[in-house]
Amino acid sequence: MKLMALMIVALSLISTTWAQGQHTQTGRKSEPMQTMNDITMVAPALEKYAQGPLADLWKRPGLTPRDRSIVTVAALIARNQTIEMPYYFNLALDNGVKPREISEIITHLAFYSGWENAMSAVAVAKVVFADRKIGADQLPAASPSPLPLDKEAEAKRATSVEQQFGSVAQGIVQYTTDVLFRDLWLRPDLAPRDRSLVTVSALIASGQVAQIAYHLNRAMDNGLTQTQAAEMVTHLAFYAGWPNAFSALPVLKDVFERRPR
Amino acid sequence: MKLMALMIVALSLISTTWAQGQHTQTGRKSEPMQTMNDITMVAPALEKYAQGPLADLWKRPGLTPRDRSIVTVAALIARNQTIEMPYYFNLALDNGVKPREISEIITHLAFYSGWENAMSAVAVAKVVFADRKIGADQLPAASPSPLPLDKEAEAKRATSVEQQFGSVAQGIVQYTTDVLFRDLWLRPDLAPRDRSLVTVSALIASGQVAQIAYHLNRAMDNGLTQTQAAEMVTHLAFYAGWPNAFSALPVLKDVFERRPR
Amino acid sequence: MKLMALMIVALSLISTTWAQGQHTQTGRKSEPMQTMNDITMVAPALEKYAQGPLADLWKRPGLTPRDRSIVTVAALIARNQTIEMPYYFNLALDNGVKPREISEIITHLAFYSGWENAMSAVAVAKVVFADRKIGADQLPAASPSPLPLDKEAEAKRATSVEQQFGSVAQGIVQYTTDVLFRDLWLRPDLAPRDRSLVTVSALIASGQVAQIAYHLNRAMDNGLTQTQAAEMVTHLAFYAGWPNAFSALPVLKDVFERRPR
Repeated sequence: MKLMALMIVALSLISTTWAQGQHTQTGRKSEPMQTMNDITMVAPALEKYAQGPLADLWKRPGLTPRDRSIVTVAALIARNQTIEMPYYFNLALDNGVKPREISEIITHLAFYSGWENAMSAVAVAKVVFADRKIGADQLPAASPSPLPLDKEAEAKRATSVEQQFGSVAQGIVQYTTDVLFRDLWLRPDLAPRDRSLVTVSALIASGQVAQIAYHLNRAMDNGLTQTQAAEMVTHLAFYAGWPNAFSALPVLKDVFERRPR
Repeated sequence: MKLMALMIVALSLISTTWAQGQHTQTGRKSEPMQTMNDITMVAPALEKYAQGPLADLWKRPGLTPRDRSIVTVAALIARNQTIEMPYYFNLALDNGVKPREISEIITHLAFYSGWENAMSAVAVAKVVFADRKIGADQLPAASPSPLPLDKEAEAKRATSVEQQFGSVAQGIVQYTTDVLFRDLWLRPDLAPRDRSLVTVSALIASGQVAQIAYHLNRAMDNGLTQTQAAEMVTHLAFYAGWPNAFSALPVLKDVFERRPR
Repeated sequence: MKLMALMIVALSLISTTWAQGQHTQTGRKSEPMQTMNDITMVAPALEKYAQGPLADLWKRPGLTPRDRSIVTVAALIARNQTIEMPYYFNLALDNGVKPREISEIITHLAFYSGWENAMSAVAVAKVVFADRKIGADQLPAASPSPLPLDKEAEAKRATSVEQQFGSVAQGIVQYTTDVLFRDLWLRPDLAPRDRSLVTVSALIASGQVAQIAYHLNRAMDNGLTQTQAAEMVTHLAFYAGWPNAFSALPVLKDVFERRPR
């Protein structure tokens, strides 16, 4: 295998994008049709599925293109999949996700997916932002005025976690309160409902089944509807694989049944 | 760290290959001994294990080299591990896996591992196929005549899933029927038994324990023997790590015990 | 997107490092402040968290900087996250982890995380070792004199696994004895307590919840204290994400409660 071929693969793995211009609301095609030809040379069926069910997915009711972009971006960061991340970051911006919201999604997933996942996303977003002349004035402040805290709900959460795990590992229990629920979750540049959508999408996409129930309830408390939650799982079947979606379904069923109507 | 060093790492991460020419049936060494020297400079013990247990693994009875290549390729795609993917794609071709079968494995895992996993595999396969002058005439059609559908078994499956999850998320339930079981699984260029081997290997390799039982039963219905299933797990211990293999063993045990003899 | 931009992303994804010189014990800054600027251009909040809780984390009592480096390196290899691997390999060396210990960590995780994870780590470590003029004389032998075997404990383990899975998949059961517990675990260049710390960290970091209990007990038998285990989970919350840490907590709680005091 020659050096040039290797170089092409190396670059492809980072930058390959797929011609899904039809996903954008504005019609602006953010990336050239780079992988269309690649797919044809390896798996023609994938082109058929991309233009059929995958393209249709983005047009389904139940979840807006903006929400679908949030779900997709969260899944890619959670799974550390950078190959089409530039394309999907651009698509998210085209679909109405603000630069400050992308910034907050990455910041949020530094904690919910892991610090290194955020570092990979930063490396990609830096180039996307530079290409679109997105400057510091469009980014969230490091320490903005926080959203108001629901003291009662937070006290209940903190007490529950303290009772379960305070005697096991006080360090993480304290960080969970101080860094996550009294800081990260109160950052104002991503709405709590969207922050929850990011969290649940990342949990499902990375197979964290045991953590879905709490955050799905929180998401629905924050305004995510049952229809949107169901459609989120359908969307993630494509981007995180059928098994992750199917492992989440029993949790959705249980949460839906237990919530007061 | 100098630019050239970085470049070397970048390329190594994509292209590094290991001198496992002995794995091939034909004796053709598809790749030069590129990582042999790398390993020696970092972890000499790994060279010992590569030439001992790992080389022996490929010669064990219970699973042919062709099947082992299918299992390995499925694991790499499921885990999105591209570093030795060129080597193992070439090895698979040397071991008798047809280009159209590799194409179908990638297409299949677009749904069972996630769309982005397939995109990474496409970027690698494109170069491997080009190097070997594998053209469009050796690839499956986008929409070939499907295999005959076992209507009774499919109706039973569809009813079961509908009853469990139809009221939770109708979207994914419908796609599961239309895109997966009445389309993808009927594509003729990968035998159902091999398609099942790919599916179960990917599930085990990515820790999707809850989804193994259904697909292992399906695999055995499709002709995978108990001996082959056991050897698949043994093989995956090396390529997907001991913990994934051990988490699959209780499921295998249970499935083996429940099946009629 | 221009070629140069792609190249920059490609290189960034491999080499990006973060200015965490304060983590080192020696004060030597092993890498330039490469991502500081990147983060500022995308997510200023991450800089705040890096200089606040993440920097503080490394100074907490309960786990030495050397142990934290072992936990972090194990997590990165287990999760196949190479973007900051050069930085954290250098930091580990600065924090007192020996080159032979890094070599053994990679070798160990070839089996506990998967062969390909080790291959990616080898590609990175090769460059780090070369930069620091670490030669073959500082690496472990391929086949050194093994540590003494605790025959009674090993017989008990082997019998238990044989009874559970011997009739299911004899291949993996035999390899587990021959390659892992009578070979890998007896390699002398990584202390059993550290080898256990690597194993449990990798299990938690990759969400292998079902395998934690056995190895946490083994780690504590090998000298890991309850305080260190708790702090390991707190550390991993940052590097492997909160969900992986929280899914491990019930196992820690159960293991702590069942062990004789």
